[in-house]
Amino acid sequence: MTVKTVGILGGGQLARMMVLAGAPMGLRFELFDPAADACGGQVAPLQVAAFEDEAALAAFAERVDVVTFDFENVPARSAQFLADRVPVHPSPDALAVAQDRLSEKTLFAGLGIPLPPFADIRSRDELAARVGEFGLPCILKTRRFGYDGKGQFRLRSAADIDAAWAELGGQVERTGLILEGFVAFEREVSVVAVRGLDGEFRAWPVTGNWHVNGVLSASVAPARLSPAQYDAAIGYARTLAEKLDYVGVFALELFCRGEELLANEMAPRVHNSGHWTIEGSETSQFENHLRAVLGLPLGDTRMLGHACMLNWIGEMPDADAVLAQPGGHWHDYGKQPRDGRKVGHATLRGDDAAQLATEIEAVGTRLQRAEQVAPAVATLRR
Amino acid sequence: MTVKTVGILGGGQLARMMVLAGAPMGLRFELFDPAADACGGQVAPLQVAAFEDEAALAAFAERVDVVTFDFENVPARSAQFLADRVPVHPSPDALAVAQDRLSEKTLFAGLGIPLPPFADIRSRDELAARVGEFGLPCILKTRRFGYDGKGQFRLRSAADIDAAWAELGGQVERTGLILEGFVAFEREVSVVAVRGLDGEFRAWPVTGNWHVNGVLSASVAPARLSPAQYDAAIGYARTLAEKLDYVGVFALELFCRGEELLANEMAPRVHNSGHWTIEGSETSQFENHLRAVLGLPLGDTRMLGHACMLNWIGEMPDADAVLAQPGGHWHDYGKQPRDGRKVGHATLRGDDAAQLATEIEAVGTRLQRAEQVAPAVATLRR
Repeated sequence: MTVKTVGILGGGQLARMMVLAGAPMGLRFELFDPAADACGGQVAPLQVAAFEDEAALAAFAERVDVVTFDFENVPARSAQFLADRVPVHPSPDALAVAQDRLSEKTLFAGLGIPLPPFADIRSRDELAARVGEFGLPCILKTRRFGYDGKGQFRLRSAADIDAAWAELGGQVERTGLILEGFVAFEREVSVVAVRGLDGEFRAWPVTGNWHVNGVLSASVAPARLSPAQYDAAIGYARTLAEKLDYVGVFALELFCRGEELLANEMAPRVHNSGHWTIEGSETSQFENHLRAVLGLPLGDTRMLGHACMLNWIGEMPDADAVLAQPGGHWHDYGKQPRDGRKVGHATLRGDDAAQLATEIEAVGTRLQRAEQVAPAVATLRR
Repeated sequence: MTVKTVGILGGGQLARMMVLAGAPMGLRFELFDPAADACGGQVAPLQVAAFEDEAALAAFAERVDVVTFDFENVPARSAQFLADRVPVHPSPDALAVAQDRLSEKTLFAGLGIPLPPFADIRSRDELAARVGEFGLPCILKTRRFGYDGKGQFRLRSAADIDAAWAELGGQVERTGLILEGFVAFEREVSVVAVRGLDGEFRAWPVTGNWHVNGVLSASVAPARLSPAQYDAAIGYARTLAEKLDYVGVFALELFCRGEELLANEMAPRVHNSGHWTIEGSETSQFENHLRAVLGLPLGDTRMLGHACMLNWIGEMPDADAVLAQPGGHWHDYGKQPRDGRKVGHATLRGDDAAQLATEIEAVGTRLQRAEQVAPAVATLRR
């Protein structure tokens, strides 16, 4: 393997973890981010420029062998500008679909992937009509640029229509709006999968996820699903990847309601619900993403036992609580603390689900985060 | 954990792998090496200066919270200079013992660790007398600064005494000389172990090693030893670490002759025979070394199945041969190819020894390295 340089648009923790997965293989990296303090810049050269800066993009393209993303909301035009100069994976077309909730959900529906009702919303009257059709509660979202619960308004009664429109109606031209029917789901799961340049597809075991205020709080893998649900979830991910001729890692989030699975959204990149793969799988999502975009053989996605990931939001807790556990692994993204910011995570791995539950419970107690760990503990004990 | 910066003397592949193990935990690093192209400099800031440059050492001490080593042959005076300014682990005293084959072997003998006969050699006549005593073959070595078979002369007949003295006699003042009796060993194994700041001791499973021209070629863990040998090997490592009040990871190399174990030497640092721990153990030697020198809880040293490490010497072979195997992991140190130089390694991990043997055999065939993989394959099939 001659020395290859991978360019990453976005220099946050996902880029950082990609660099740390690729450096052992002798890969070099160049990151591109508008923020001078992007935490990936602590582990790889960082070009600080706006995503729209074509002179900077052109120079970046000169220095790298392939471009990929830590952040999917890069302007489609910038992705295309780069793709005219150097291989870009996933492709700007795949990215464009995933950037827009409406085109994404239209694609799901076209592929026969079940999903909650949704509608393009262009006016307050259209919103009112669709709320009547879908029933309450339901959620108004921007079509683009939303993540981690941002750009969303949950409507609980007809009286909320005006407030929702007041908050998001101004976005109708810039980002577009979509109304989504609410699903009283029991669980959320995600499929993290990878597709190679040659079309080979592999998925990690399906992961169970818990969110707090729209932000991932904890994940457990493998998720407890029926074999039929399990196969359906992986099948949806494969269908989607093949339709998009997708190259790299992506995540498909799904709601579970009884035996039913309903697609929520796709993330065209390595995903927070796949962080456990660093220690919990033969090959991490970060390494396999790099293998895919470089055309190398994909690595095995089998699990090593059971794994639980706990997200640290706002500030880092005490590392010793995790490091003292036999299966405890610590990830600190080197970011400044800030409310609502993902600053790190911990993964606990174990051969035995019950023993892992005991370790996680101990972490929760020691860090006074019993609430955060409770759903993971309950799942592992079931 | 507030942000800590670890200073590493020596910036080679061991430093590089330490950086890559510590960065996920939010650690920062500063490397110090006389060579501007030291490969650790690709992943962390590198101070290029001679190990004797006290102004550079003083500035380095200012920038770091703790100092450790990728290279044990740092001048004792430099280690002490740093230890007067900042915590240094392992201690200059422990380093001094391990730097000198004579004091190391004298210590082994004093602790009741069995080892081949050895003698301090000050003259040609003394060499001749001791050769007569130990019998042939035997090996004349420099007391200091030898590694990977360098600074050694194997005597096969009495006629070799003059040639040995001609080659190494000039070193008697600078490095000292030691004569070692030859052991017709059947196998070589190593204990890679870690001792914490608080005295906690943990060892990884004993590793079986094969050398070619004095350089490690392949390792398999766990080594096949009788339970009594296994316990004895770990016990010797613990005794040694406690005697030296050692902090960090070290390796103890042992020869096996039937049920007998004979100590060869100690390396006061992370060790090539422990590279498999990156994928094959819950906690790698690199991470545990950092945890130890920072006073963090030590990580679990249990194995995940079986592992085989293959060293790449001189130049990197084709990565795909390894990446295509389910348990294959690739390590490229980012070094220029050069005869005899360690430029990378591969680790293959598997739950099942027989399956792992098949994978390694496939790698050997594809890379035309059947000879390199043969002993590992045979051990795993036994």
